[in-house]
Amino acid sequence: MGVPDADIHPTATGQAADTVAQHQSPQELVFWSGWFCPFNQRAWITLEERGIPYQYKEVNPYKKEKHFLDINPKGLVPAFEYKGKALYESLILCEFLEDAYPDHKPSLLSSDPFTRAHARIWIDFVTKSIIPAWQRLLMAQGVEKQDAAREELYTAQRKFAEQVKGPYFSGEEFTLVDVAVAPWITREYILAEHRGYKSADVSNEWKKYAETLATRPSVLKTNSDKDKLQPIYDRYLRDEAQSEAAKAIRAGRGLP
Amino acid sequence: MGVPDADIHPTATGQAADTVAQHQSPQELVFWSGWFCPFNQRAWITLEERGIPYQYKEVNPYKKEKHFLDINPKGLVPAFEYKGKALYESLILCEFLEDAYPDHKPSLLSSDPFTRAHARIWIDFVTKSIIPAWQRLLMAQGVEKQDAAREELYTAQRKFAEQVKGPYFSGEEFTLVDVAVAPWITREYILAEHRGYKSADVSNEWKKYAETLATRPSVLKTNSDKDKLQPIYDRYLRDEAQSEAAKAIRAGRGLP
Ligand SMILES: N[C@@H](CCC(=O)N[C@@H](CS)C(=O)NCC(=O)O)C(=O)O
Ligand SMILES: N[C@@H](CCC(=O)N[C@@H](CS)C(=O)NCC(=O)O)C(=O)O
Repeated sequence: MGVPDADIHPTATGQAADTVAQHQSPQELVFWSGWFCPFNQRAWITLEERGIPYQYKEVNPYKKEKHFLDINPKGLVPAFEYKGKALYESLILCEFLEDAYPDHKPSLLSSDPFTRAHARIWIDFVTKSIIPAWQRLLMAQGVEKQDAAREELYTAQRKFAEQVKGPYFSGEEFTLVDVAVAPWITREYILAEHRGYKSADVSNEWKKYAETLATRPSVLKTNSDKDKLQPIYDRYLRDEAQSEAAKAIRAGRGLP
Repeated sequence: MGVPDADIHPTATGQAADTVAQHQSPQELVFWSGWFCPFNQRAWITLEERGIPYQYKEVNPYKKEKHFLDINPKGLVPAFEYKGKALYESLILCEFLEDAYPDHKPSLLSSDPFTRAHARIWIDFVTKSIIPAWQRLLMAQGVEKQDAAREELYTAQRKFAEQVKGPYFSGEEFTLVDVAVAPWITREYILAEHRGYKSADVSNEWKKYAETLATRPSVLKTNSDKDKLQPIYDRYLRDEAQSEAAKAIRAGRGLP
């Protein structure tokens, strides 16, 4: 048995630590964050992109502490406290920031109804097709299962990449579609090192898109050091993780 | 072997047939609808609630006809063609109607950012917790599996019911949260007849809420005759259905 999931490095490191340091003073928006979590990074990228004032508070969601369950009964990061009221679910938080801070430019969601819906369709594709395949590949044991999982991920990423106008999903503007997928792109190196994943094997379009997102300042500013992330991912790679996501994949359920 | 999934009654019946008859003339919004489908009913309820002009076109999504795959590459109902451009995914369609028809009252989504996000959290709960449990109970074979699946569904519905302000989810106003769950409520009789499901065993709150939604005019107006629905559900009850949803549940994947 390895370490329990709750035994993770307690704080953000690297560039993310600087970003945390700049967001210590009280604000009407409190960001309950787990530095390591890709869903969490979506909310964080959005806050940084739009220059929204927020107070950063680190929480270890694996500990299921009462104070945090009072905010998110699911016990998952990210969560917000906004004027004392709690909200959670990364994509809902990103849309909330659009609704609650319309004057903070740039908006990451078009005001045109059709374009908004189109963006949401592809965000939904990330949720339903890319992330579960990513997670299954990460946890797959044995060459055969890994090969199958990798092909499934490639297929989903290829479909997505075909829709990318470039450099960003919707063209020149960085939008919530990019936010939705970026945290898994900045973690692709884990699949590359341990699961034979090659960005170029998806498609040239994907490779180029992935490079663009991985070097976006808001993504870099919310990345912690790789050596602190590695022990967490090691547990997934050995299929020992006991997170809600890991249990869901093992039980053949949708992700939480 | 039973009949293939594609072999379903071709058109809406009962009250839904009258509604279809009233929506035959060309409009800028074309509703590509499968009369039998609960996801589809969400879009339909929303259109009816808000009095949005639409042209109803029936499609059998199991046939995967090219003309329909050109609209929704996933081949699922519901879908919209709006000024010639295609959109799909039931919840995205409902939000699209909010965005594209702001003058059609009532709106089903609050304009207050916090309230909007709160509604989306519970819509997400319906998607992730209620519907998959519903679908697993429907397809579960054998008493033991059915008992476990029923308990899981009850637990999810109970949690949801605790949040219901009454008579509707958010209080006096019917909202998208109600839309999201209503089609599975109007189909509860199938679980009651075949899977030992009892609305009252969930909780009194659920039972009352379910009765309120089941008699909402927009729900009734989009219901077809039970005898036409039965053969479709029979395939699920015998675990013979070959729909994308049935295959996903069997493969231990999230719903499409
Ligand atoms: N659907 C959620 C997923 C969030 C999530 O899974 N967060 C993980 C960390 S990456 C968590 O808090 N896990 C705690 C646990 O599994 O107990 C979202 O989009 O916000
Ligand atoms: N997530 C989709 C699900 C729609 C869906 O599953 N529709 C079913 C009918 S209820 C369908 O078109 N099935 C065709 C198939 O499975 O091949 C939505 O919310 O619109």
